[in-house]
Amino acid sequence: MIRSILTIVFAITVFVSVAQKSIMGFNESNAEKQHSLETSFDAKLSTDNLDSWMQRMSAHPHYVGTEYGKKNADWMAEQFKSWGFDVQIETYQVLFPYPKIRLVELTAPTSFKAKLSSVAVKGDEYTSQGKELLPSYNAFSTDGDVEAELVFVNYGVPADYEELEKLGIDVKGKIVIAKYYGSWRGIKPKLAAEKGAIGCIIYSDPKDDGYFAGDVYPKGAFKNNTGVQRGSVMDMPLYPGDVLTPGYGATADAKRLDRKDAPTITKIPVLPISYDDALPLLKAIDGTVAPRAWRGALPITYHIGPGPAKVHLKLEFDWQLKPAYNVIAKMKGSEFPDQWIVRGNHHDAWVHGASDPVSAMVVLLEEARCVGELVKAGFRPKRTLVYCSWDAEEPGLIGSTEWVEHHKEELQAKAVAYINTDGNGRGFLSAGGSHSLQNMVGEVAQEVMDPQKGVSIGERMGAQDLMNDGDGNPGLYALGSGSDYTPFLQHAGIASLNLAFDGESAGGEYHTIYDTYTHYKRFKDPDFAYGIALAQTAGRITLRLANADILPFEFQQWHITILEYLEEVIQLTEDMRVSAEKHNNLVDKNAFHLVADPKKPFVNPPKKGVVPYLDFSPVQNVMVALKETIDTFTAIDFEHLDHQEMTRLNEKLMLTEQSLMSNSGLPRRPWYKHQIYAPGFYTGYGVKTLPGVREAIEEENWDEAPEQIKLLAGTLNGFNDHIQEMIGFLK
Amino acid sequence: MIRSILTIVFAITVFVSVAQKSIMGFNESNAEKQHSLETSFDAKLSTDNLDSWMQRMSAHPHYVGTEYGKKNADWMAEQFKSWGFDVQIETYQVLFPYPKIRLVELTAPTSFKAKLSSVAVKGDEYTSQGKELLPSYNAFSTDGDVEAELVFVNYGVPADYEELEKLGIDVKGKIVIAKYYGSWRGIKPKLAAEKGAIGCIIYSDPKDDGYFAGDVYPKGAFKNNTGVQRGSVMDMPLYPGDVLTPGYGATADAKRLDRKDAPTITKIPVLPISYDDALPLLKAIDGTVAPRAWRGALPITYHIGPGPAKVHLKLEFDWQLKPAYNVIAKMKGSEFPDQWIVRGNHHDAWVHGASDPVSAMVVLLEEARCVGELVKAGFRPKRTLVYCSWDAEEPGLIGSTEWVEHHKEELQAKAVAYINTDGNGRGFLSAGGSHSLQNMVGEVAQEVMDPQKGVSIGERMGAQDLMNDGDGNPGLYALGSGSDYTPFLQHAGIASLNLAFDGESAGGEYHTIYDTYTHYKRFKDPDFAYGIALAQTAGRITLRLANADILPFEFQQWHITILEYLEEVIQLTEDMRVSAEKHNNLVDKNAFHLVADPKKPFVNPPKKGVVPYLDFSPVQNVMVALKETIDTFTAIDFEHLDHQEMTRLNEKLMLTEQSLMSNSGLPRRPWYKHQIYAPGFYTGYGVKTLPGVREAIEEENWDEAPEQIKLLAGTLNGFNDHIQEMIGFLK
Repeated sequence: MIRSILTIVFAITVFVSVAQKSIMGFNESNAEKQHSLETSFDAKLSTDNLDSWMQRMSAHPHYVGTEYGKKNADWMAEQFKSWGFDVQIETYQVLFPYPKIRLVELTAPTSFKAKLSSVAVKGDEYTSQGKELLPSYNAFSTDGDVEAELVFVNYGVPADYEELEKLGIDVKGKIVIAKYYGSWRGIKPKLAAEKGAIGCIIYSDPKDDGYFAGDVYPKGAFKNNTGVQRGSVMDMPLYPGDVLTPGYGATADAKRLDRKDAPTITKIPVLPISYDDALPLLKAIDGTVAPRAWRGALPITYHIGPGPAKVHLKLEFDWQLKPAYNVIAKMKGSEFPDQWIVRGNHHDAWVHGASDPVSAMVVLLEEARCVGELVKAGFRPKRTLVYCSWDAEEPGLIGSTEWVEHHKEELQAKAVAYINTDGNGRGFLSAGGSHSLQNMVGEVAQEVMDPQKGVSIGERMGAQDLMNDGDGNPGLYALGSGSDYTPFLQHAGIASLNLAFDGESAGGEYHTIYDTYTHYKRFKDPDFAYGIALAQTAGRITLRLANADILPFEFQQWHITILEYLEEVIQLTEDMRVSAEKHNNLVDKNAFHLVADPKKPFVNPPKKGVVPYLDFSPVQNVMVALKETIDTFTAIDFEHLDHQEMTRLNEKLMLTEQSLMSNSGLPRRPWYKHQIYAPGFYTGYGVKTLPGVREAIEEENWDEAPEQIKLLAGTLNGFNDHIQEMIGFLK
Repeated sequence: MIRSILTIVFAITVFVSVAQKSIMGFNESNAEKQHSLETSFDAKLSTDNLDSWMQRMSAHPHYVGTEYGKKNADWMAEQFKSWGFDVQIETYQVLFPYPKIRLVELTAPTSFKAKLSSVAVKGDEYTSQGKELLPSYNAFSTDGDVEAELVFVNYGVPADYEELEKLGIDVKGKIVIAKYYGSWRGIKPKLAAEKGAIGCIIYSDPKDDGYFAGDVYPKGAFKNNTGVQRGSVMDMPLYPGDVLTPGYGATADAKRLDRKDAPTITKIPVLPISYDDALPLLKAIDGTVAPRAWRGALPITYHIGPGPAKVHLKLEFDWQLKPAYNVIAKMKGSEFPDQWIVRGNHHDAWVHGASDPVSAMVVLLEEARCVGELVKAGFRPKRTLVYCSWDAEEPGLIGSTEWVEHHKEELQAKAVAYINTDGNGRGFLSAGGSHSLQNMVGEVAQEVMDPQKGVSIGERMGAQDLMNDGDGNPGLYALGSGSDYTPFLQHAGIASLNLAFDGESAGGEYHTIYDTYTHYKRFKDPDFAYGIALAQTAGRITLRLANADILPFEFQQWHITILEYLEEVIQLTEDMRVSAEKHNNLVDKNAFHLVADPKKPFVNPPKKGVVPYLDFSPVQNVMVALKETIDTFTAIDFEHLDHQEMTRLNEKLMLTEQSLMSNSGLPRRPWYKHQIYAPGFYTGYGVKTLPGVREAIEEENWDEAPEQIKLLAGTLNGFNDHIQEMIGFLK
């Protein structure tokens, strides 16, 4: 039965009928039972529920602290109860800024006042809800009132500031205007402040997110001239969750930081605007023409400035504690009640959030309903199922983070895995997570049918991978941040997954007033066919984890993946060395000066520092040892384990991911403890694998890099010990 | 003295003072004399002349057939005479269409009539010359009156039609609208007609040529909303020159084709328009959204159509024979009067043509003036100098082509080389041509100083090459077409060069009413410093060819280059095979279908034909033989040749390029006889090296490819014989 653990199953294979197939971690007869359970589960799934629940939940704005958010929480709790779950609403008191004053005006060389509002759209009644609609802003911007010359900084990421340096342009004392995209939004004000800017405006350029991408709403799905992306700019790469209670639950009586001391609130005021509001500002900037890659799709020549455009930016927020309502619904396991399979999705939205998050929230509800029905028909999951509906995800993963921080000890003892979703569309399965779960996800992907193509979703993924020059066997992507898996995986060390369908439902509605039921039904997954596919996928994963004889963690594939990350990091150092040598050679030959156009701004670049040779051998040697350990573990004849041995194995297996944590956490951000996966300090959502080592190298911190290599080697050594222990008591 | 022939001199080396340096093809004492001659030549060069002559020549529009064009020709003839040249104005009667009716109107779903005119610009009086300004059109469009649905075809190149095929979109019976760029403009109506379209509109998208590129005129140098690029759409890849007299001079009494039979006039009507005129047309197109790479910088979502936009395009031309005045000025050689160094630039322009062509035309004049002065001071070139100012280049290289066709026999007997220019800017030397001249050009580039950087222009080119990941030794680029070197090189087999400075003078004035003296003085080479550098470069090349003891042709570098082309062509076949196999594998796996979004247009692609293995050995073997021959030739002790041997060697050397011709010419276009360089049949200006072989492979003509390989081998064998003969009589 365990042989299938070894199969890399994200492959294009002829679809084999379910009845014949084995399942990772199940013996033959239990696999048959499980397949029959899944068939019953599938049969109960209803698109009508997804549709009507989405209508209900997204009928009004429901950001944290709203009445409608509370109504949704209460309603979900009732539903869970009616399906037979033990339900609790766990409430945290979290800081949430509501915009009181938002002002952006051009004061020179001409004047213009940004409208800061999105138009209501004919045919979409939800967009006409007036004052109910949350004004557009970036949550956790600091208050501020500044006026200064404007500088266009492209996406406002580190590479852009390097480019500005080459052009001799400084943002000190200026207000920057940056395009959305290119990084998670919170990086833009963070970096701008580090560079000395005193304010930050973020806008959606139509090239990335507007008419250039496709027809705009309401004709098409993309962002119209007045659409504004809301979103948090909290410094989540430092720590997510309530800004006042880092590392512990924001219970009513928790000790709180003074707001002035909260390190994750931005240092400078920041506000998002539409491309209609951005156009007059950008048009008024003169000076150096922006590099080609910086230019967007507005009908202007993009200049960098500074000035003559001068902008007045004034922001004031109502800083209040708001209740965040997490709905937690448990179905107790029959054999191992203290082994939890946690399945989560958030319920709060910036506005209506039909797509983000309701489209997948209703999928989770439907999964739970069907489980409830199966239970009513006699099924009992071996392990406990915990369905979670998080509040306050949008402002900074707050609901989930507070819950994980609050229950960390219990979770680290009981949670087998966390399965996250956060919105759903049409197209291809996008699956990220802990690589010890890659093969089990791949197995599931081979069994869930794509609603459009008559093949499995795994086969469709494989075809896409082939088209993208892959080998047809795509793996799980590594998790950075951006949704509620972060506290589970990166703070508590619980193996996690993040699932969604996408690729055929692009649009510009994200975090705008246009993310409505109407928009969803026209452009996303109108018949909820992929909603059902997601329920089948997440449902199978949840139920297999719940019922497996042996938990389907697998480490040979994991080892291949981690080895790839290690090779990447080694190659990165080599590339940096070659690049620095090349750069220094060009400096020595005066090539930059000789090639520069004397009529254009130019700063002769300094030589780069030497990239030292690093000793990666501590990690390389552990990886060699680990391979042997993992091969030995995998070769064990699991078929003949008795119940007690299995139980002991499972109790150890479920904790494996935690052995990848380091208690000290990452440098300068101890909240992040996972040594394999973290959001990048300067990418925000984008993942950095082997983050301690990789970021030390990227930031040319040559003292820290060897320390981090040793730390990583130590962590991997602990992982090796953990597997050795399992081998030990199984032999 | 000959050792330096072997040096690859496009290298960054410490600049060595002129007096110490040897010169390829000169003995030591003659090299010293030549350097002193060049010093005198340089001292005479005057930026004032360049400036005032440009003002004079570009004061009014002077396209072929205009009074001002005739005035320019007469004035130049007078100048040459006054400088001591024998001057002739050689006149040809060439077909030239003048627009009578130009109509583009949107007839559905809304109506709009294109203005087809560019605005006069404050501060640039030349743009206000009203009726004198040639209306914007594409010369050698056929007459036509068509109305049909519009289809947006990106650049209208072969790859774009492949994309349309994948989307199931047919242009049969439609009018296409294509962006300028991506190919020479004439390819667009040619391909559109082949695909069944009945009309073609070409416009300048602001992404390629407008505000996206930079500030527009008059604020900046780039194309404003009303600018229109004129230009020929004659099928020059078939043959350039007068459309009615292919292969022979368009003398007054020449036999002429009936216009209806002229194969180089387009099959469908075609007109260029501004982006202001294009915007309503593109906005009115709906249907499939254009692929990302197709989208320009207009503030719209780019759709492909067809329709609902419907366009009425009506064009009528006055088809008249016009006199084309070539000004030919000769300075007879003292020793070898029947060895000609030909130096040319055209004088006609679409409108004022300050940049194209006057900026380099005045450089040629200044070179000739200085030579005249040197002659008056006692200098006599050993070989005859022939300075040519061509008319009617713009409509299709007509003046030069007719002259070359008319005098082909004499030219093939007498011309040593042709040195072309066609406009000049600021920045880096751009040098293309026959690779047997690469080292001599490189040597010159090491001696001419860059006006801005205090190093030689060669050193600056080298720095640019380093920055572009090259080795710092850029060679000559291979010549395709687009200027008057084509008849010399590709029809008559005369070694040719094309020279200009560019890279720091970009703009959108090309072929518009904005290519004026005012524009040039603001944005191109305001102080004519690079005009002087071009005179120094072309002047040195001309005078060294004129005075060399042994003509500075060199074949080891040539061999290296041709071998690279051969390797490219072999690799191309391999790449096509791999690509076809990959494609067919994806088709077999049904990947295209599986990945396609069912809500978007999609045609499952057919399998590609097998790419056979070709036998390149005939060419490979000749190349091996050639290497030995060339090495033997290069090793000859040239120092001890007597005058008679040198003369005999030079008489043979100057004909070497002709041994690279095949009398039968290229398949389906026998006018093009050079077997190494040709403009691409479907690129227009873009070069195809080893064109017979390369195009047979690209077009998957697997019967023709082996024939062309044999033909090329035969030609190269002839080249080998030619060098063997020289070795024979030198030993």
